[in-house]
Amino acid sequence: MLYPVPGIRLGTTAAGIRKKDRRDLVVIECAPGTQAAATFTQNRFCAAPITVARAHLAKSAPRALLINTGFANAGTGEPGIEDARACCTALASQLGCGAAEILPFSTGVIGERLPRERIVAGLPSCLASLNQNGWAEAAHGIMTTDTLPKGSSRQVKIGSRTVTVTGIAKGAGMIRPDMATMLAFVATDAAVAPPALQACVSAAVNQSFNRITVDGDTSTNDACVLLASGATGNPVIDQAGGEAYTVLLGTITEVFMELAQAIVRDAEGATKFITIEVKGGRTESDCLAVAYTIAHSPLVKTAFFASDPNWGRILAAIGRAPIARLDVAKVAIYLNELCVVRHGAPDAGYTEAKGFTVMRLPEIRIGVELGAGTASTRVWTSDLSHDYVRINAEYRS
Amino acid sequence: MLYPVPGIRLGTTAAGIRKKDRRDLVVIECAPGTQAAATFTQNRFCAAPITVARAHLAKSAPRALLINTGFANAGTGEPGIEDARACCTALASQLGCGAAEILPFSTGVIGERLPRERIVAGLPSCLASLNQNGWAEAAHGIMTTDTLPKGSSRQVKIGSRTVTVTGIAKGAGMIRPDMATMLAFVATDAAVAPPALQACVSAAVNQSFNRITVDGDTSTNDACVLLASGATGNPVIDQAGGEAYTVLLGTITEVFMELAQAIVRDAEGATKFITIEVKGGRTESDCLAVAYTIAHSPLVKTAFFASDPNWGRILAAIGRAPIARLDVAKVAIYLNELCVVRHGAPDAGYTEAKGFTVMRLPEIRIGVELGAGTASTRVWTSDLSHDYVRINAEYRS
Repeated sequence: MLYPVPGIRLGTTAAGIRKKDRRDLVVIECAPGTQAAATFTQNRFCAAPITVARAHLAKSAPRALLINTGFANAGTGEPGIEDARACCTALASQLGCGAAEILPFSTGVIGERLPRERIVAGLPSCLASLNQNGWAEAAHGIMTTDTLPKGSSRQVKIGSRTVTVTGIAKGAGMIRPDMATMLAFVATDAAVAPPALQACVSAAVNQSFNRITVDGDTSTNDACVLLASGATGNPVIDQAGGEAYTVLLGTITEVFMELAQAIVRDAEGATKFITIEVKGGRTESDCLAVAYTIAHSPLVKTAFFASDPNWGRILAAIGRAPIARLDVAKVAIYLNELCVVRHGAPDAGYTEAKGFTVMRLPEIRIGVELGAGTASTRVWTSDLSHDYVRINAEYRS
Repeated sequence: MLYPVPGIRLGTTAAGIRKKDRRDLVVIECAPGTQAAATFTQNRFCAAPITVARAHLAKSAPRALLINTGFANAGTGEPGIEDARACCTALASQLGCGAAEILPFSTGVIGERLPRERIVAGLPSCLASLNQNGWAEAAHGIMTTDTLPKGSSRQVKIGSRTVTVTGIAKGAGMIRPDMATMLAFVATDAAVAPPALQACVSAAVNQSFNRITVDGDTSTNDACVLLASGATGNPVIDQAGGEAYTVLLGTITEVFMELAQAIVRDAEGATKFITIEVKGGRTESDCLAVAYTIAHSPLVKTAFFASDPNWGRILAAIGRAPIARLDVAKVAIYLNELCVVRHGAPDAGYTEAKGFTVMRLPEIRIGVELGAGTASTRVWTSDLSHDYVRINAEYRS
């Protein structure tokens, strides 16, 4: 159930951008006064719409977000920037606002021009479908290799008022967000001033979208946008900290985390949902380095696909993680609650039969203890299957 | 054709270490006076035999190398060290030398104990087969998931004498050597003093084994050993630099490079041999970071498997490479001689038809120009296929 967010309306249509009869164009309209904050990809080859969205957001609060699938409009140089701007201008003229009040987003194949005329032609039917209950349709409209739409919604009391947080996301491959995410659009009806909203999106992203990886490939088009319509009429939350901020941040983080985990669950070809929990590090960044080295190891990922407790591959990944110091004699490895390695060597109680019992489960936690400090972190990832190769060898055809 | 190296004899047998009727045990015997130098894995969870070999090599020149497949003897803690030592002691007693004059090497499954009694039982037949022409047999004897044995041999004149360099290597997966390689054993009959020999192995490794990757997974058992028997009777090459050293290094580097490329050509499931050449970087380390980011991208690798010129994935990998500065407007990308991207955007002369023509080839060069300086590097890698997943999901079963 995705609760509507007063002040936010969504419209979706099939504009035939790259394939026929597929929902591929979404408009998210914001009531006047809506504030926005966002994080964007750190990939240097960031897509044209990211460049334009970042510039527009710096100029003014948005009146609408325009999202297309099919083409990413990345690696398209200056013509790509012009395509993105032209789409904004077309939507702005229909909404009666300035082009800088439109934030454009694209996802799909990299390196090909955006068919801007098809997008412009699709706008009237997209706008005709605008409504507060359009979240589920829009979640479909932003999918590419996703097999399922991804949405999350929560309500929470802030003071005397009920505040809603609802969001959608897309992504299944080219997933290793770096200070950003795949496309995610989340809105609340709370009134939040821009600096507090930016603090909120950054903090929540760091616990959610920045903790997932499918294949280590940071997309050129990642973006996570948080909208605050203010329709609920609460006293404006104008800085980070404070009770209202904390409650709202908690709820937003829950929504972000549910969306981020939904991306990993729907990872291309995935058959397993893997949580990697690294504890006892000197720093959080050491823990993250160990977690991502495990998460990106093709050998670990194929062993999980095979439900094979080949824990030597996890141990080898830890051993090559780029951290300054590692005392292998202190390392412990767990599969769920089963201790596999203790003090850097096989645990006396471990048997392969026990290992198989855990590895057959669809959701598995890899626990790593480094014995070097008190820092910890969690990362979510997927396995590497035949279908991952099939999907990515066939994508485009 | 693998030329024999006077002073070096090799014996191979099927000791039934993990599977029946498979050559799995090799002894490389060195004539007295043979010098050795080596590079070993940087993986912190280095295998027990690596720990023992490193300690033994520091004590004395080796009289023999003992290599088994089936089990890697990694992640086995103190009992694993004892297993490795016991095997050395058994071989030493048969050769009439000290245990520290034996260098042990293992490759295979991580985390299981070495069946030392089977290894010891196999030694007599292994020693009975010792001969100077045993290189090809030994190349078979060190294989695991390799589909082909890997050997390389060269002869070169140094002064008035003909010097031979012959080597074998194994490896097809868990390949991303880091200051070392998978198992490689190379011998020359030139007389070389230990410091010059160490300089030689380090320099040659850096242009060969340290420039290949299959899956980014650095093995726990990597080792590259260079033996110099001195049987050719040349004046001892006792320091790096100088004409004799330079000629020998050149030949050794050729042998190393042929072995390293043979590993990539035989990479698990590989259908393509990919050379990644990065030029115009500020530093060689920037070039390497870009090259390895491309080489490790599952999306790039699956596109090559599909023969799909989906160059946007190469561009996205360059954009996320961990280097301090990147001016995307200066980046060019080539597939063989075909310019795909120039000044960060699609080249005017590029067509997808031309891209497909290159991508169908079995050997492809990805050329990247960064436009930031004069440094350059080359890395060799493979694609990611259904068979890679099958092999690594099934390995052990």
